[in-house]
Amino acid sequence: MTRQELISIIRKKKSFLCVGLDSELSKIPPHLLREEDPVFEFNRQIIDATIDFAVAYKPNLAFYESSGLKGWVSLEKTISYLHMKKDHVFLIADAKRGDIGNTSTQYAKAFFEILDVDAITIAPYMGSDSVQPFLAYPGKWAILLALTSNKGANDFQYLESEGTRLFEHVLQTSGKWGTPENMMYVVGATQARQLESIRKIVPDHFLLVPGVGAQGGSLAEVVQYGMTKDIGLLVNASRSIIFASSKEDFAEKAREEAEKMQKEMAALML
Amino acid sequence: MTRQELISIIRKKKSFLCVGLDSELSKIPPHLLREEDPVFEFNRQIIDATIDFAVAYKPNLAFYESSGLKGWVSLEKTISYLHMKKDHVFLIADAKRGDIGNTSTQYAKAFFEILDVDAITIAPYMGSDSVQPFLAYPGKWAILLALTSNKGANDFQYLESEGTRLFEHVLQTSGKWGTPENMMYVVGATQARQLESIRKIVPDHFLLVPGVGAQGGSLAEVVQYGMTKDIGLLVNASRSIIFASSKEDFAEKAREEAEKMQKEMAALML
Repeated sequence: MTRQELISIIRKKKSFLCVGLDSELSKIPPHLLREEDPVFEFNRQIIDATIDFAVAYKPNLAFYESSGLKGWVSLEKTISYLHMKKDHVFLIADAKRGDIGNTSTQYAKAFFEILDVDAITIAPYMGSDSVQPFLAYPGKWAILLALTSNKGANDFQYLESEGTRLFEHVLQTSGKWGTPENMMYVVGATQARQLESIRKIVPDHFLLVPGVGAQGGSLAEVVQYGMTKDIGLLVNASRSIIFASSKEDFAEKAREEAEKMQKEMAALML
Repeated sequence: MTRQELISIIRKKKSFLCVGLDSELSKIPPHLLREEDPVFEFNRQIIDATIDFAVAYKPNLAFYESSGLKGWVSLEKTISYLHMKKDHVFLIADAKRGDIGNTSTQYAKAFFEILDVDAITIAPYMGSDSVQPFLAYPGKWAILLALTSNKGANDFQYLESEGTRLFEHVLQTSGKWGTPENMMYVVGATQARQLESIRKIVPDHFLLVPGVGAQGGSLAEVVQYGMTKDIGLLVNASRSIIFASSKEDFAEKAREEAEKMQKEMAALML
């Protein structure tokens, strides 16, 4: 999906909500365990319930890999299902991959050719050749970790070198590898106070913002400091939507949560 | 596998060779394409041919994920095959994973419970909670990226903060999370000149050293600067062994290459 298409969908739906499909088998409503593929069935109902309010979906690979081969089947079915929806959405594989050049080329093939998602999250530690293979696909995106939403973000991401913190080095250096048409950055909502300085380095790039919801980040702050004239934000919520209820009404409750977030977003959009 | 068991195997085989199973479908000998699962058949023959000289095997996940579901089947079969061998070896999933705590817990489950490998490579960018779930399994290992063998290593890993370079911060800080019994570090052989200063920070940890062979690192230098009284090294070679020949004699040639490396290692062992 191109940047322009993404912006159009955001404008049309008045939403920049990404629903994180962290579909942990042990947390999905028990009545679904009768299904042949409970995780896919859960995702299918979550997607149907939330797609009016979401512009993106983000399966988190860990929650599929942890079921082995069965998990990969659920993942592939979920992505195929999203591809078949008339309502075109942006698909992010939250995979945190990245390796030396010839290996990243294989990951790019796995995610952009086999799974055929629009974007993949990438860890920046290994530098340029670990990211560049993902930038060779027109209409596909690399989403680089910059400043993450977790406690461990404080271990290395704030280390200052020549007056510039590591996450700022990542933004500056990687800005030379790609463009706002094929790169985004992960910036956690729990780090919203850093968005002002981040926007000075990457004024145009889309930011994928996790951490609103279960992790406690504020949507209003993210918008205040991070929104651009093209919106420039995809705000992710996972657990607060998909596990809003653990009972038979889970899809209905997920829809309510997604609608609530979309309404907040619409009110905050310029 | 415990540290003591690993050291015993190394002493017994007079080898610290890890064979990297970067088994790219387009590079395996064409006559194997007739097989039902060409990648598994390739791996099976490579393992049989090299196991006398190798103490570890390291499938690189990218080369399996790039074939989708089929690739995961080949990977699972390869790992099961290695588990069944009487000759006990150390199994590393080269997966470069790492995410926020609750997600890394799922990756740990995927690799240590479902695939049941001994170790997994981890990217350190997200800090403590992204690594700790991998340290909760007795006899299992987290292998953290410190200084990698690729060109992109120069982008961030050498950034200096308060007189300490990023890879040194990673070694120092992560040293508090685990012990030499459950953590190793990746240090590329192309960075052998850094091993002296690395050994000052982590005198006892095992190092997984890629980059000898196709990437041009020197085994003698790695040993000179990196070996400890417990050896403390696993040196990986992938392409130079598994693709030593692209013809029907590939396994035989792989065996010759592995034996050559093992003999060099034996001569260099204290």
